[in-house]
Amino acid sequence: MQKILIIGAGLSCSTLVKYLLDHSEKHNWTVRLGDLNKQLAESKINQHPRGEAIEFNVFDTDLLNVEVENADIVISMLPARFHYSVAEACLKHNKNMVTASYVSDAIRNMDQEAKNRNILMLNEIGVDPGIDHMSAMKVIDEIKEKGGKLTAFESNTGGLVAPEYDNNPWKYKFTWNPRNVVVAGQGVAMFLDRGQYKYIPYHQLFKRTEIIQVLDYGDFEVIPNRDSLKYLDVYGLKDVQTMFRGTMRRPGFACAWNSFIRLGLTDDTYVIQDSENITYRNFINSFLPYGHDRTVEEKLSDYLGFGVGSENMQKLKWLGIFEDRKVGLANATPAKILQKLLEEKWKLEPTDKDMIVMQHQFVYEKDGKQKKITSSMVVKGQDQIHTAMSITVGVPVAIATKLILTGQIREKGVHIPIKKGIYSLVLKELENYGIKFTDEYEDLD
Amino acid sequence: MQKILIIGAGLSCSTLVKYLLDHSEKHNWTVRLGDLNKQLAESKINQHPRGEAIEFNVFDTDLLNVEVENADIVISMLPARFHYSVAEACLKHNKNMVTASYVSDAIRNMDQEAKNRNILMLNEIGVDPGIDHMSAMKVIDEIKEKGGKLTAFESNTGGLVAPEYDNNPWKYKFTWNPRNVVVAGQGVAMFLDRGQYKYIPYHQLFKRTEIIQVLDYGDFEVIPNRDSLKYLDVYGLKDVQTMFRGTMRRPGFACAWNSFIRLGLTDDTYVIQDSENITYRNFINSFLPYGHDRTVEEKLSDYLGFGVGSENMQKLKWLGIFEDRKVGLANATPAKILQKLLEEKWKLEPTDKDMIVMQHQFVYEKDGKQKKITSSMVVKGQDQIHTAMSITVGVPVAIATKLILTGQIREKGVHIPIKKGIYSLVLKELENYGIKFTDEYEDLD
Repeated sequence: MQKILIIGAGLSCSTLVKYLLDHSEKHNWTVRLGDLNKQLAESKINQHPRGEAIEFNVFDTDLLNVEVENADIVISMLPARFHYSVAEACLKHNKNMVTASYVSDAIRNMDQEAKNRNILMLNEIGVDPGIDHMSAMKVIDEIKEKGGKLTAFESNTGGLVAPEYDNNPWKYKFTWNPRNVVVAGQGVAMFLDRGQYKYIPYHQLFKRTEIIQVLDYGDFEVIPNRDSLKYLDVYGLKDVQTMFRGTMRRPGFACAWNSFIRLGLTDDTYVIQDSENITYRNFINSFLPYGHDRTVEEKLSDYLGFGVGSENMQKLKWLGIFEDRKVGLANATPAKILQKLLEEKWKLEPTDKDMIVMQHQFVYEKDGKQKKITSSMVVKGQDQIHTAMSITVGVPVAIATKLILTGQIREKGVHIPIKKGIYSLVLKELENYGIKFTDEYEDLD
Repeated sequence: MQKILIIGAGLSCSTLVKYLLDHSEKHNWTVRLGDLNKQLAESKINQHPRGEAIEFNVFDTDLLNVEVENADIVISMLPARFHYSVAEACLKHNKNMVTASYVSDAIRNMDQEAKNRNILMLNEIGVDPGIDHMSAMKVIDEIKEKGGKLTAFESNTGGLVAPEYDNNPWKYKFTWNPRNVVVAGQGVAMFLDRGQYKYIPYHQLFKRTEIIQVLDYGDFEVIPNRDSLKYLDVYGLKDVQTMFRGTMRRPGFACAWNSFIRLGLTDDTYVIQDSENITYRNFINSFLPYGHDRTVEEKLSDYLGFGVGSENMQKLKWLGIFEDRKVGLANATPAKILQKLLEEKWKLEPTDKDMIVMQHQFVYEKDGKQKKITSSMVVKGQDQIHTAMSITVGVPVAIATKLILTGQIREKGVHIPIKKGIYSLVLKELENYGIKFTDEYEDLD
């Protein structure tokens, strides 16, 4: 019998737990799910005979060591900052570990020690990071193997509401952490564009978008991600002329969202005076110049250069930003106030389903000709529990866990899934769960 | 004989040292000037029989204690972050202390201890902070004393090149720390405008300016400072409807400067790839969208919405931002690269003189009528050593030091010069050095 320990029973672990329990009989596994909130863990185990929920605090080092020692593999689904102590325990007790998070420098530095102890620490095996790495490296390696030379790589991902439930003027609902959406892009976006490094400051980011098409899902708008340059190293692409990663929204989102950035509403670094008692209308007015003979709507429309009746202004009105309704949040930053309003309006309804869209574009030269492969994936959620996000994070983690336990993944040390020995096996199994890419081929010359 | 210890022999201490040495015979003082760079200190003492230059490292606690113990008063002209250890030594040896810097919370917390030890720690007695506090509080207290009720207070200050030497298209040269000018305004500007709190994000700040006139010096453009709201407490102005502080430039500066903010060139948080070898032209192009058939000039003019031949574009060209000249700075942030270019062009020439301009506007009600006082000061530098900045920082520090040594300022504890017992004496003596305000009176009704 092999014992799987999962730490963290949050949103993204539902599908993971289900997969592992569904396969537990066949492989003779038990699944132990620990969370600070034991009831939450119990709800995910759902009285499965091979599952057990426990109360678990990652700061309880004694418990952590006991649980890790008793497990055959450990999956950490905690927020990324907690992985380090789990990793330390895994090293101590020689246990394999899997996470869906970006590998930190601290964990990367455990590589040699993990190799010495003959264990694998596999990170970034969710959707983004995860499926993006695997599906990109598959095509990149194929192009190389066939003697092609990659010149441009662009990769875009979005978490959106599925088209059937896309019924608000923003064509967007929160399908993941709202805070991350509100503060997305702060800092600078860096990428490589036809041989030239490009830098876009946050306050220009939502103006510098492009439109792409994905299969028969229509148009999407792409907003540059923060650091695309690091993927030159990660994917070993020293000679490409273009390296770009972006986030997908439906067209029109970025221009309207940019209104909030221009006003300053996404700032999370200072507190608004008397934020509890002001109204949303006061809040907006605080960011506009004085003008005693104009309404807040008129001033905003002037300030942003949108017509009063424009689609952009309609989007803003629809959110209720002009309402004389109390904010009711003490000591709140602009970003927190904006988030509160958005959470009311961009809420995923119980019957709504979400969608993950990913598309890579590869341009390469072969036999003196320019060619392009466009590789696209769309996954829709099944329900409010098995959302597209939970499926696309959980299934690759689960498959990787299975492949490690069954000895099919044999790498040792600290890894992300960019090696063929890992990605080819995982991608193949993902197809059984509807997670697959459709490739389109074009000749550019 | 009274012994004055000055720590730090930087730019702003020339006039301070001169004042104290000029008065040393009369008051029987000696002046000891310590700096890491002993030669710099020697050049300021200039072999005056009552002066002595010493090598001084503020981290050498033993030396610090010996020097403070031997002094009757200590003036710290070090960067603000070093004042704390000086203040600790002053407390230990019961010595009065004077600085021209913003008082830190750590030093403010020494108030009771300083009172117990019967010493004064006087901070913020330079120009801004310093002369601004004193001149504002004088008028504020006068309005109160006459039964008036202050409704609006606005205060603006600028360090500029004197009009006679104002010969570049920006109407600006560096008269103080260039880095502070490059990163000025980052964060959010907060003020109170006719009863409404207002917040302006950095990327809108240089668009939200106003024009004011100062005496016969013509028009100035005002850019809001970061936190005007704290002055509600500092000046005890609970009931005013407007509280605003700003920085003055010549009209046209802000709009052109905003180009750099819009591009992202003032960002000091990340490093530009290969910054040593790129040219200024590459650098600018890195912030512009791709466009193979357009020049960098055309793309920039499009991006900013300035005509190719506009005054704004002329200002940018004049700086050399389009030149194919190597930056030559390794691992540089955008802000550092921009600063290097500006330092070449905005350099104060040996014969140039600088100028400090300050203006307060007070609106108040008295006997049912609205009245306004506009109080303005202009100080020009004498030469490259006794600049307007050095004079307006050094003279008030020197006067306050004299008034403490002669027992005319008798406050104890940690203070800034907002009490009549301090400001009235200092302001009166400042007039002897040409540092005086001209008041203009208007009836608004």
